[in-house]
Amino acid sequence: VRRCLPAEDLVYFGDTAHVPYGTKSPEMVRRLTLAHGEFLARCGAKCLIVACNTASAVALGGLKRSLPIQVVGVIQPGIRAALAVTRNGRIGVLGTPTTIISGAYQRGLAAAGAHVRAQACPLFVPVIEEGWAGRGIARSIAAYYLRPLVRSRVDTVILGCTHYPIIKPTLARILGPRVRLVDSADEVARETERVLCSMGKLHDGGGTGREIFYLTDTGGSFRGVASRFLGAPLKRIVRISVGVKALSDRSEKRP
Amino acid sequence: VRRCLPAEDLVYFGDTAHVPYGTKSPEMVRRLTLAHGEFLARCGAKCLIVACNTASAVALGGLKRSLPIQVVGVIQPGIRAALAVTRNGRIGVLGTPTTIISGAYQRGLAAAGAHVRAQACPLFVPVIEEGWAGRGIARSIAAYYLRPLVRSRVDTVILGCTHYPIIKPTLARILGPRVRLVDSADEVARETERVLCSMGKLHDGGGTGREIFYLTDTGGSFRGVASRFLGAPLKRIVRISVGVKALSDRSEKRP
Repeated sequence: VRRCLPAEDLVYFGDTAHVPYGTKSPEMVRRLTLAHGEFLARCGAKCLIVACNTASAVALGGLKRSLPIQVVGVIQPGIRAALAVTRNGRIGVLGTPTTIISGAYQRGLAAAGAHVRAQACPLFVPVIEEGWAGRGIARSIAAYYLRPLVRSRVDTVILGCTHYPIIKPTLARILGPRVRLVDSADEVARETERVLCSMGKLHDGGGTGREIFYLTDTGGSFRGVASRFLGAPLKRIVRISVGVKALSDRSEKRP
Repeated sequence: VRRCLPAEDLVYFGDTAHVPYGTKSPEMVRRLTLAHGEFLARCGAKCLIVACNTASAVALGGLKRSLPIQVVGVIQPGIRAALAVTRNGRIGVLGTPTTIISGAYQRGLAAAGAHVRAQACPLFVPVIEEGWAGRGIARSIAAYYLRPLVRSRVDTVILGCTHYPIIKPTLARILGPRVRLVDSADEVARETERVLCSMGKLHDGGGTGREIFYLTDTGGSFRGVASRFLGAPLKRIVRISVGVKALSDRSEKRP
């Protein structure tokens, strides 16, 4: 998005107090994401990118219904990108447990007639955050998760989590040169551009947009991991606790 | 605790909405833990066991000052257990990043004259929660984390995280029969018994205490992981959102 839309201001909201989302319940992810979307709308955002596959998989519909601004998810752009490059119609999906269990990718791909093999990869996020994406241990873990996809003879694999591009070289080495790895980042940036255009709100007059990062916890590994992703140190980080009060105290008993 | 104090009622509070704590900031862990302690005191608990090394390492003092009930941590019992078994005075500590960075074990052991080698093991919790503690991948990860401890010729290693007993056989195989692995569970149970005795509130008249599990998110892997730890399915699980409103909205800017 930064490369594709250099003049736009970007307001990033990272719920570092609750991450990882990929192993939380869909209901928890929905409630948190809605509170964060409301915060960003109050910040004056003209468009919300739900740049998390887990949140897109379980919360996108509710966000679109509830927020007064445009909402772009990452699942549909990933599906479009995969359908555009597959030749044999056999597509693999890697994601967090909550994303895979939601079935969002599987439904969208199957509706387009693709054969889908989905695999939850709960250890990829911690391995990437530990900075081990290029190590032998990451290769062993990846080989395990990729085995069913290789057996299903997929020719395209969707990286269904925003962390996974970091581990892409390891995945590419295991899958070989004939398998295309698709991440939704470029397609999401293009969709965002289209949305802003259709609203007549695209900033394309040159200049460089500002960036601000809101975090719900500033003590962890975010600064290091985000710099590794963005290729540059972050300038403005603000800690905030929006979202937490959106949780109800309804309790749920099971016998 | 269940084995040592079979007649006591146990009220468990698991902050599954915010786990893992081991990579959160100390301030966040302190605020959450205090809110949970207040909840358990309101539930009528006569004694609070802070059964998390990260919370014990950074929040124990504040809990003892703020709560109207007795508070038992896991760090001091672990230190006592390690000092009781070491022969060469060289002790290793394994823990989450936040526990190790806090220096709580290192200070306590060094004050007793021990030579300490501490190692953060951020991948152990996700590997254990994935159910891979016995696999080759866990052995590779453990071999990496244990290398500096082996080089330091420690004869005792503290398992400084309540998850780690699950990976104990893997650690024992790498460290060999001459290294003692210490986890604080037994010592914590004994300290709790002493505290209850000194208050004149020990239930030792026989019978079986009840158990209830409060969770802030019930959708994840808790039920499976907890059953693996306890060796039996859980009966009463209640979802609750206490703790979240204790977060302030004070924001912290960095240039």
